[in-house]
Amino acid sequence: MNNVVDQKNRKKMTIVDTDVHHGYRSKSDLFPYLSKFNAERFAEYGIETGFSFGFNGGVRGRRAELVDENNPPPKENFFTSAFDVEDTRVRLLDGSGIDLAILTGGIGQAASAMFDVDYASALCRAFNDFSLEHWIAKDERFRLVLHINSQDPNGAAAEIDRLGSHPAVCSVMLGCGAPRPFGHRLYHPIYEACVRNGLAVAMHFGAEGTGVNPPISAAGFPSHYIEMRQIRSSWYSVNVASFVFEGVFEKFPSLKIGMLEAGFSWLAPLMWKMDFDWKGLRRQTPWVKKLPSQYIKEHIRFATQPMEEPEDPSQLKQLIDWIGGSQILMFASDYPHWDWDDPARTLVDYPEDFRRRIFSENAIDTFRLSLPSISKAA
Amino acid sequence: MNNVVDQKNRKKMTIVDTDVHHGYRSKSDLFPYLSKFNAERFAEYGIETGFSFGFNGGVRGRRAELVDENNPPPKENFFTSAFDVEDTRVRLLDGSGIDLAILTGGIGQAASAMFDVDYASALCRAFNDFSLEHWIAKDERFRLVLHINSQDPNGAAAEIDRLGSHPAVCSVMLGCGAPRPFGHRLYHPIYEACVRNGLAVAMHFGAEGTGVNPPISAAGFPSHYIEMRQIRSSWYSVNVASFVFEGVFEKFPSLKIGMLEAGFSWLAPLMWKMDFDWKGLRRQTPWVKKLPSQYIKEHIRFATQPMEEPEDPSQLKQLIDWIGGSQILMFASDYPHWDWDDPARTLVDYPEDFRRRIFSENAIDTFRLSLPSISKAA
Repeated sequence: MNNVVDQKNRKKMTIVDTDVHHGYRSKSDLFPYLSKFNAERFAEYGIETGFSFGFNGGVRGRRAELVDENNPPPKENFFTSAFDVEDTRVRLLDGSGIDLAILTGGIGQAASAMFDVDYASALCRAFNDFSLEHWIAKDERFRLVLHINSQDPNGAAAEIDRLGSHPAVCSVMLGCGAPRPFGHRLYHPIYEACVRNGLAVAMHFGAEGTGVNPPISAAGFPSHYIEMRQIRSSWYSVNVASFVFEGVFEKFPSLKIGMLEAGFSWLAPLMWKMDFDWKGLRRQTPWVKKLPSQYIKEHIRFATQPMEEPEDPSQLKQLIDWIGGSQILMFASDYPHWDWDDPARTLVDYPEDFRRRIFSENAIDTFRLSLPSISKAA
Repeated sequence: MNNVVDQKNRKKMTIVDTDVHHGYRSKSDLFPYLSKFNAERFAEYGIETGFSFGFNGGVRGRRAELVDENNPPPKENFFTSAFDVEDTRVRLLDGSGIDLAILTGGIGQAASAMFDVDYASALCRAFNDFSLEHWIAKDERFRLVLHINSQDPNGAAAEIDRLGSHPAVCSVMLGCGAPRPFGHRLYHPIYEACVRNGLAVAMHFGAEGTGVNPPISAAGFPSHYIEMRQIRSSWYSVNVASFVFEGVFEKFPSLKIGMLEAGFSWLAPLMWKMDFDWKGLRRQTPWVKKLPSQYIKEHIRFATQPMEEPEDPSQLKQLIDWIGGSQILMFASDYPHWDWDDPARTLVDYPEDFRRRIFSENAIDTFRLSLPSISKAA
């Protein structure tokens, strides 16, 4: 990966963006998809979980230049989501030459932490219906992650069956936080429904430490947003370990999982440790038949953003080699967050075949995507 | 670090073992150091917190060959600790040529999670007194980590002042789990007392997810011991971030912290991320004046065990270089755990000056140790 790259002669690459945060402008956007009682509850109480460290970088979590004083982010939009379809098409899709953008929302992480399971599931259904009508229908470059309430796995499976065959639906969202890690058998109806509908799982943090979820670390809550960011990888690694050691991939051999906004450099020591420990301890989990890192390489993919960038970029290249990054990484912009990655500046100094895998092919394989027929890159 | 090493001409190195688990054989060993009420309570209820995944490798957590059928580990000794002073002197100190062994116990992690703060603190005091009389007094190669109840920082400071001037006492134990991370100002009386007594902090997991502590991950408890091991590093990293971003090292510039049984390969991505994030977010924590990795390099040390060993050992060497391992790693055997490291087989293929730092000098600096006058290595 140390070849000199001829930047000028690069042709336009197909770009799949695996993590674009879409949302609604106003709570009332969801009213048409809710019962009268739930709409009134949503108007009055809103989303009843979801964490906030108050200060979270940028301008209310957004890049300063994305905040338009004439079209400001609504206060109730606490997801730091894009709330304007047209603006997103112009700035992100056209502006950054994105061929496919996976809309990750969302509401499911917060819903999965709510006390009232029925209200939570109703919000997920409403958000999915809203997203199909007001985002997916507006541009053929959008794909959707379905939001479900993971606290009710059978109910979640019903929601997956209700909308899973829509051609723009490519996966099902899980948060990282939960009462138990996501490899646990109590969640398996969700994976059965994913497999039945040919959908991947997308995992994205969002409501850790709120509602029914435990605190965000074994030492509770830190004081500052920057501290929270240092343990975010652990919210994913506990689930990576759970998926592998609970035997999820032996039970669901076609299941793929995309981990979003997790970064990936933490994966090298995790793979080392999982493999090393498995050699000494595997008699407790005899259904784990291969090296743990092998399951990861076959089933789990990682979005590139936010990259832990060392002072010396050659170290990152080395680490990407160690984890087999060309096969398991997928580009994500994380638009419209303050720390988003511009594809024009991401992993620039890497060879073409590597970039092709990261910018489109790995995501296309994981989420079984097909490019729009009029894609500029076709 | 890729020089060829002349193994045969190596002379005996000084070895400081920074993590040896000592304990008592029977609860009654602590009775002389407890009030009548507390002794009766201890006899009846024992330690009222402390986690167990049941199966935890080896034979009840010990290396099989260390379990002597004629002198079996007592059932009540759930710390997986060495319970026989003579046996430890012969097998570990003499057998492995250890010049100094830091006895890490312990009871403080479990005590710090107990509901009843007075009972918990009494157990810490009793354990410290027992350790001085029945371990430290038996061999001049032993050094002691004081056990304290971190739930009562002022009470903990009093215990540090009571015993901190004992020449064999070298540090103060904190667990990783807690209601809030350990950089928080509520714990600062502990660090004031450490500085006042010239003692380091030793951090070692032990009672995460039990008693007053939150569950061990943002997704609660996994099913299996091997899963727990994959997130153990996060119990340390949340505290590394807390110490740095709460400004503990600006407030206590002489404070040193030794993190034990944490491994260290997770530190490379953590350093990258802390530094990278600090550049974008430092206005929330303006008292953090240097690169976060700089504070780590100046103040925090990491025991080598358990090493995450990749298939290709050159990757580990590379990573050790990235984190400045020659200055921040300290050898630990983790005796008598099943996954202990024999010093004769640890980091063998590294140059002499590197090994000297790791096997003794870094620990001597961190814990302000002096070698016994009759040390074989003197």
